[in-house]
Amino acid sequence: MKRIENFKSIIDKYEVVFFDAFGVIKTYQGLVPGIEDTFAYLEATKKEYYIVTNDASRSPVQLAESYHRAGLTAITPDRVISSGMLTKEYLDLKVDDGIVAYLGTEDSAHYIDSSGLHTLPVSQINITNLDKVNALIFLDDEGFDWCDDLNKTVNILRKRTIPVIVANTDHAYPRSVSDVAIAIGGIASMVENIVGKQFIRFGKPDSQMFMFAYDMIRNYRPISKKEIVMVGDTLQTDILGGNKFGLDTVLVLSGNTLPNDAEARITATGIVPTYICDNAVVKTGGFDF
Amino acid sequence: MKRIENFKSIIDKYEVVFFDAFGVIKTYQGLVPGIEDTFAYLEATKKEYYIVTNDASRSPVQLAESYHRAGLTAITPDRVISSGMLTKEYLDLKVDDGIVAYLGTEDSAHYIDSSGLHTLPVSQINITNLDKVNALIFLDDEGFDWCDDLNKTVNILRKRTIPVIVANTDHAYPRSVSDVAIAIGGIASMVENIVGKQFIRFGKPDSQMFMFAYDMIRNYRPISKKEIVMVGDTLQTDILGGNKFGLDTVLVLSGNTLPNDAEARITATGIVPTYICDNAVVKTGGFDF
Amino acid sequence: MKRIENFKSIIDKYEVVFFDAFGVIKTYQGLVPGIEDTFAYLEATKKEYYIVTNDASRSPVQLAESYHRAGLTAITPDRVISSGMLTKEYLDLKVDDGIVAYLGTEDSAHYIDSSGLHTLPVSQINITNLDKVNALIFLDDEGFDWCDDLNKTVNILRKRTIPVIVANTDHAYPRSVSDVAIAIGGIASMVENIVGKQFIRFGKPDSQMFMFAYDMIRNYRPISKKEIVMVGDTLQTDILGGNKFGLDTVLVLSGNTLPNDAEARITATGIVPTYICDNAVVKTGGFDF
Amino acid sequence: MKRIENFKSIIDKYEVVFFDAFGVIKTYQGLVPGIEDTFAYLEATKKEYYIVTNDASRSPVQLAESYHRAGLTAITPDRVISSGMLTKEYLDLKVDDGIVAYLGTEDSAHYIDSSGLHTLPVSQINITNLDKVNALIFLDDEGFDWCDDLNKTVNILRKRTIPVIVANTDHAYPRSVSDVAIAIGGIASMVENIVGKQFIRFGKPDSQMFMFAYDMIRNYRPISKKEIVMVGDTLQTDILGGNKFGLDTVLVLSGNTLPNDAEARITATGIVPTYICDNAVVKTGGFDF
Repeated sequence: MKRIENFKSIIDKYEVVFFDAFGVIKTYQGLVPGIEDTFAYLEATKKEYYIVTNDASRSPVQLAESYHRAGLTAITPDRVISSGMLTKEYLDLKVDDGIVAYLGTEDSAHYIDSSGLHTLPVSQINITNLDKVNALIFLDDEGFDWCDDLNKTVNILRKRTIPVIVANTDHAYPRSVSDVAIAIGGIASMVENIVGKQFIRFGKPDSQMFMFAYDMIRNYRPISKKEIVMVGDTLQTDILGGNKFGLDTVLVLSGNTLPNDAEARITATGIVPTYICDNAVVKTGGFDF
Repeated sequence: MKRIENFKSIIDKYEVVFFDAFGVIKTYQGLVPGIEDTFAYLEATKKEYYIVTNDASRSPVQLAESYHRAGLTAITPDRVISSGMLTKEYLDLKVDDGIVAYLGTEDSAHYIDSSGLHTLPVSQINITNLDKVNALIFLDDEGFDWCDDLNKTVNILRKRTIPVIVANTDHAYPRSVSDVAIAIGGIASMVENIVGKQFIRFGKPDSQMFMFAYDMIRNYRPISKKEIVMVGDTLQTDILGGNKFGLDTVLVLSGNTLPNDAEARITATGIVPTYICDNAVVKTGGFDF
Repeated sequence: MKRIENFKSIIDKYEVVFFDAFGVIKTYQGLVPGIEDTFAYLEATKKEYYIVTNDASRSPVQLAESYHRAGLTAITPDRVISSGMLTKEYLDLKVDDGIVAYLGTEDSAHYIDSSGLHTLPVSQINITNLDKVNALIFLDDEGFDWCDDLNKTVNILRKRTIPVIVANTDHAYPRSVSDVAIAIGGIASMVENIVGKQFIRFGKPDSQMFMFAYDMIRNYRPISKKEIVMVGDTLQTDILGGNKFGLDTVLVLSGNTLPNDAEARITATGIVPTYICDNAVVKTGGFDF
Repeated sequence: MKRIENFKSIIDKYEVVFFDAFGVIKTYQGLVPGIEDTFAYLEATKKEYYIVTNDASRSPVQLAESYHRAGLTAITPDRVISSGMLTKEYLDLKVDDGIVAYLGTEDSAHYIDSSGLHTLPVSQINITNLDKVNALIFLDDEGFDWCDDLNKTVNILRKRTIPVIVANTDHAYPRSVSDVAIAIGGIASMVENIVGKQFIRFGKPDSQMFMFAYDMIRNYRPISKKEIVMVGDTLQTDILGGNKFGLDTVLVLSGNTLPNDAEARITATGIVPTYICDNAVVKTGGFDF
């Protein structure tokens, strides 16, 4: 574990950089100041980069647009790899027909539309269509009535033996400088505990997220895991997952992990990043590239 | 473990009978048919009995009234011991002043009113009174907005280091012949997991419930644990808790545990009742007492 | 939560003091320096005191002797309340005949001998006596072959549906200034997880420990919970358990909880003692009593 | 979920078959009777097959030899994919120098030897070489003293912040018709719980096992997940892992899951195989191939 002053020296060592989104590129306040310089440097040096995010609430196109609106045009939809994409792949491969019930917004559901499947919010499941429900997806914490629809979800899962996908493993996410919100991953764990069944989770730290990104690169060029670095602000997801997949990892201190307790948390959890860096900003001050 | 045909033979062996409420005396359909005969027999033979319940949604007076409305007048408020009573004892002993924030109905909150404390629903906590919140109670799954108030609860607990009481340990409860509902104990576990703090739980199988009942009896007469039997329909709460406290236990098959999988569940969990009985109904057919 | 300079001022406020043993009265290095003054002050002021310990490896007589050898004669066997005593009470009340198999030393087993029961180490259970095993007890981490006897324990519990008692809930205990040892509570959790059955645990933070002590006092005098204070070095056992039972609590910093992270741990766990004190030593400097 | 009479009809539908080892190809009694016919049929029809096993106690060469000794020569080392191989890949990618301490047999350790690393049993770690320990691996339940070496492991991990690999996720494994043994995965969970750090686990149901096998095939030919089927006897590892990776799955009833409770377990866990088949034996009776 090495402390690094300038994130630039990390980029210089690798061919491909995977970035977590929240806490690394943006926060609830908008873009991390100076992060545009990082992407300019990546473009200038012809390095590849991907955003690897547990956010399943929107499609890659919508996620990219949110960066564009903030002024970061370097992030195009083909650079975004979300846990929602793994959910869609699962449905394509494993669920042939019938209804996919979901908890989340219409936006999140639109994205997982898969040929042959009928996507319906849990609120619209009733005695007439219950038998056709062949999968249930936890997509987002918004877009449904928590009390009514979670109670309905519990009862659907007591009556139907079907795969249940959790498209976002996070239990909470920051909403302002002082507040967090309960994420769909936390809600899903409560339901899983109550119905006693085993759900399928997509999202970091699970290897399948990294594999999906790794495969996308290998589709058009050879690459070794040694040439990829994962940059994240959370030990339990970004760093643990990256390490396990065999990647070098950078913990940045611009999000979940605060500068003054990074070392204590690393010691307590035993999750050790390859590098620690204040943030993912390339400091280009005065130098040409 | 002995199968018993007539619950009467169990009553005959003990001085005091503890009953769970739901699944033993009543179900979502009303009183268990014939249960009046059991209480008539208890009165006739001058045996003592108590209702030991995880239901913290109403006071003993209100719980007793609900039996009276159903036609069972033998259950008076002084016979009812609920996890809510332990919550109230905790507040009396351990919280001296300030606000007690709660999730639940007004009825449930009214009951825990303790001198010197101001009881307020979580929805009414804000930046002006946050500093005065000295305890937070999970009372009931009704009476609040799940999305708004659970998110608010998480943030209160991130800002205030205060005791959190879960007044009902159940994770789900039956609502109709085919459906269950998520109980406040399940919701509390989700919040506990997210904030990473340790909550205090009152309710079976915890010994403190049984101790509370045991103490009530000893206030006016000597009694040995050998002379008390606990009757319940749930292995993980009634039977485990009764066994651990040192009581003999009866599993009845009129609620949570179904006749055709009682033995499989006992073997799977290792929780062994002293007796198994179809229900807690005394069959008095043709005999005088 | 108040910081207290001199433990004496705490004693002055209560009628009865409960002490945890390890980390409060003694450490792996012997008695806490000056602790004799505390017991001299308790005797002088005619306050009652009890040692409430999760140590089930020896009987109260043997535990008291270990204090005498160290020079602390004030602790007599009737002052010692251990989780082993709850185990013995359970066997007396709930197991009528047959074999009680155990993991632990002969010393620890001798203590739980109960009339009508035959106590045998797990190593002596075989095909000829397996059917007579009516309970299994995890007593101590010493006195048995971990590999052979834990594998045998797993297979006994797959074949016999019997109560399993864990007489010490601790998962580890300190053995020197730098090292800890795995405790029987940690081993029991592994076995419980593998066999999928539910074990019965005695020991702090469970209320039954406190109730046992509380009942001992009430046998000869009336006492209110308000008049008892629990002194311990561990938030998760001593303080959580004392709080839940309704007692005031003192966290001392002479054991598990170190002075420089006491506040961080209290905030992280949400377990709040009534007082914090460097140690349980009464400073009597220059004053007569 | 379809019941299939003859495993042959499953092979006919796929290009590649992944087999779990224990409970599918062999049991504690030796090869599953008739399983040779399955591999003869696979060879005759030029289908590919791999053994995907959580057994990290021996190298692929040694595992293949054990099949040869039993008379099944079709399984060559290049067909065996074990969780030990993922452990070796991790060490190659992520640990550059120093000592790798391990719990297991010398055989299991020999296999993970990685250039630049010094592999030493935990029993040989002491104050002179502790600082050079850069990883610790749980390999096998044999080859070490459980009491001494597990206590030593706990203390190594309290002093060194290093990655810990669990090379076998199983908590128990069958050893005879009536007995099981505690597996290294169960032991590792106890240690993880005591030290409070997060270990890295390789083995089904984790996707990385399936990805490793999938990548091996893609090295020399294109293949879609739709063309691969996973055959296993355990819902929680083989079937859950296969499903999540996007493969079709076959539950066979020759091992962990018994014919008379397969459906109950599927309903209870919510883990649904694509097919159920008595065993993985191709019945070729009277037909030529």
